[in-house]
Amino acid sequence: MTGPQHMTPDEFREAGRAAIDWLADFLADHRDGGHARPIVPDVAPGDVYGSLPPSPPTTGEPFDDLLADVDRLIAPATTQWQHPGFYGFFPADSSPPSILGELISAGLGVQGMMWSTSPACTELETLVLDWLVEACGLPDRFRSDGPGGGVIQDSASSASLCAVLAARDRSGGAAELPRLRVYTSAQAHSSIEKDILVAGFAREQLRVVPTDAGFAMDADALAAMVAADVAEGLVPCLIAATVGTTSSGAVDPVARVCDVAGPAGAWVHVDAAWAGSATVCPEYRHLLDGLDRVDSYCFNPHKWLLTNFDCSAFFVADSGPLLDSLSIVPEYLRNAASDAGEVIDYRDWQVPLGRRFRSLKLWFVLRSYGTDGLRAHIRAHVAATADLAERLAANPSLEMAAPLSLGLVCFRHVDGDEASERLLAAVNASGRAFLTHTRLDDRYALRVAVGGTWTTADHVTELADLLDALLLDEALDGP
Amino acid sequence: MTGPQHMTPDEFREAGRAAIDWLADFLADHRDGGHARPIVPDVAPGDVYGSLPPSPPTTGEPFDDLLADVDRLIAPATTQWQHPGFYGFFPADSSPPSILGELISAGLGVQGMMWSTSPACTELETLVLDWLVEACGLPDRFRSDGPGGGVIQDSASSASLCAVLAARDRSGGAAELPRLRVYTSAQAHSSIEKDILVAGFAREQLRVVPTDAGFAMDADALAAMVAADVAEGLVPCLIAATVGTTSSGAVDPVARVCDVAGPAGAWVHVDAAWAGSATVCPEYRHLLDGLDRVDSYCFNPHKWLLTNFDCSAFFVADSGPLLDSLSIVPEYLRNAASDAGEVIDYRDWQVPLGRRFRSLKLWFVLRSYGTDGLRAHIRAHVAATADLAERLAANPSLEMAAPLSLGLVCFRHVDGDEASERLLAAVNASGRAFLTHTRLDDRYALRVAVGGTWTTADHVTELADLLDALLLDEALDGP
Repeated sequence: MTGPQHMTPDEFREAGRAAIDWLADFLADHRDGGHARPIVPDVAPGDVYGSLPPSPPTTGEPFDDLLADVDRLIAPATTQWQHPGFYGFFPADSSPPSILGELISAGLGVQGMMWSTSPACTELETLVLDWLVEACGLPDRFRSDGPGGGVIQDSASSASLCAVLAARDRSGGAAELPRLRVYTSAQAHSSIEKDILVAGFAREQLRVVPTDAGFAMDADALAAMVAADVAEGLVPCLIAATVGTTSSGAVDPVARVCDVAGPAGAWVHVDAAWAGSATVCPEYRHLLDGLDRVDSYCFNPHKWLLTNFDCSAFFVADSGPLLDSLSIVPEYLRNAASDAGEVIDYRDWQVPLGRRFRSLKLWFVLRSYGTDGLRAHIRAHVAATADLAERLAANPSLEMAAPLSLGLVCFRHVDGDEASERLLAAVNASGRAFLTHTRLDDRYALRVAVGGTWTTADHVTELADLLDALLLDEALDGP
Repeated sequence: MTGPQHMTPDEFREAGRAAIDWLADFLADHRDGGHARPIVPDVAPGDVYGSLPPSPPTTGEPFDDLLADVDRLIAPATTQWQHPGFYGFFPADSSPPSILGELISAGLGVQGMMWSTSPACTELETLVLDWLVEACGLPDRFRSDGPGGGVIQDSASSASLCAVLAARDRSGGAAELPRLRVYTSAQAHSSIEKDILVAGFAREQLRVVPTDAGFAMDADALAAMVAADVAEGLVPCLIAATVGTTSSGAVDPVARVCDVAGPAGAWVHVDAAWAGSATVCPEYRHLLDGLDRVDSYCFNPHKWLLTNFDCSAFFVADSGPLLDSLSIVPEYLRNAASDAGEVIDYRDWQVPLGRRFRSLKLWFVLRSYGTDGLRAHIRAHVAATADLAERLAANPSLEMAAPLSLGLVCFRHVDGDEASERLLAAVNASGRAFLTHTRLDDRYALRVAVGGTWTTADHVTELADLLDALLLDEALDGP
């Protein structure tokens, strides 16, 4: 019995070139300003689903038809995260070498769950994470040559889940679960709450620490909460600090958090998902103050370091507790290298078993840009954001909603929430820029996250001009 | 301040073509028998790490150098999962259209966490999962037009974790946690145990149900265990059944499991990670008996359905409990479409927040091969495996270790474990085939999992010939 007709190598070559050509045009458009497609597609729920056949085809279709449908139906109905005017959420940098790294990884098609299932997949990951330690000035305790080390997770949510699990189990695990308490600030990412629920905690076991005027964790309040819990016989098992919060880019006082955590025996995890990329520049290394005392740390090269999602770099000072929580070895996965304890099996550093060869794209990025290129990327965005913030501050209709943080600026209309919402809607309706919002001090705030691969200072100036123009129009149209 | 030097679109075109050409040669070699590289690389721990510079470069390097290093250092040090002689673990099918789907997805660089963050990413996923329901003859309750539906997870481990969380919380969540019990067979995948530990259960809350002579869950034993627990005031919250176990491909009696679960109020999850792909052929739909009564189901197109890892299709009969467990909506993710309840936000169907555009590769595969092509893929492997099993059964040195199951055959040497281990080592040392092992009835067994993209009947015949030859040699060399 014969199998299916696969593309021949020459057919693959031809189809691959067509795909590359299509992407080259796609990238060229983004580089040149993103004129081919609106940032936010004009589609209603069900439009895309309804535009496609309800059943799969019985016989195969040529690749050209697929690519034509990508061009005609899919690309126009995706939000253009790579558009230079995309300032929503946080950036999700893709880049030419990273795309090609994903391509090669897909072609190799290896499973990196254990060293033995692909030595290069494991060792290249170890290497590039050591490279990141050096490139970003992270503490040596995160290097692979000691008890700690790094691993690539799919997201910061998954990284913090691993920290939660290791902390939970180091503090007694399931048997002690009801007594355990976790602390994070009111400005922490929602994934911390989701992670503790996943790990079996009740919602009320998460202590939400108040923040100061700059939206950073109030370390005195943390200390008081921890002391009160300890006095009640409860067990502080984890403090999750944030370096660069999602709403406003606030930086929790990590060193002071460690002062509190140490005597209490609590694990300290630092989530620097977005801001961590900035530490590739020596001038932002103050963000790492206190990091030489934390148990785990994560940042996402897939946000602001030109590496395709998914690539979240997660580091632990000691892999022991992580492995205690996550290592299960059934017979069908046993092998000589693992049994000898000579190798890293990254499946024991994460929740799922299977894993892609994700280090390849990060390696491609680090080598293609070099640390100088990565620094130029960050510096250009931070400088452009500072200029933008100056323009915004000079506009009498606007006020800052939080201190400027790296590539993130938060502001609001002085006339209140409705005016702010209208302004955001007008920016997004322009098709030239896309912003998202948050609430700070219980008031609506617009966020501009500057960090896209193709976003230059000129684009940010255009955004400032657009805001000025919209506010002038509004003034003319006002009551 | 200027940003980094990116590849120009033309440089990307050139680099992309070079990468495609390299992959075309890589695929051609696999298609033609995989002569370029051994299946298992001859490397010792540390070799790859030590062959690369200890620090990242300061200035960027040309893409040609990266590709040359992939060819020289990385590809030869990866285990060749796509080699036609790879029969280890379970297959991890890559395929030409799937590779190009990953490429386009990386280029689009969208975040599919919510409908609003990329409508096409969400709706294409909904569509291709509905296509899978039709292509595989799954129950209509898994279609998106009712309370249920499907979602792509990275792995079956993550899918079953979601089932564990929904089941746990439907049965009372953290407040009831100590009273909850989970049931799975002694042959279930280790990820079930890992998932319940992640979810905060103690190990002893997992009841390991004995299996029958064919390694399938003993439904009578299950019923007795559930009844005993209920009598003690405990709460059966989840029964995890397996269709196609990892060790031997055994199929748990799903309908009978549902008979037990129903009155007890337990969630039934079915893990068909590997075997599920076979149901694309109508003649294997008996594997789905009882599935119209289960709460959740998962199978991995990334194993045996020509779609690159990661692509695990997870279906629920009712998404309500899943969302109750996994939906958390902070202000910075709020948007009109979600607030109106008109759309699916897949971040609420999974643990992490971020998600790649994974449906694109599955769409490419379903359209490139058509259901006829996928059926030919499965049928060729099942037929070849049956032929192999006949050859093995005819060899007086060998005996079957489990009933033949689709593309998986388990056998052992009649002389015992040491002889079996020697045989496996000899096969793997040949460089022409790669097998892994398990233990069945507490005896060592060799596994042959036939399912690779490039594996044909001829390759399987070569393996049979190799085994015969090795056993003859061994007989000649024997004492």
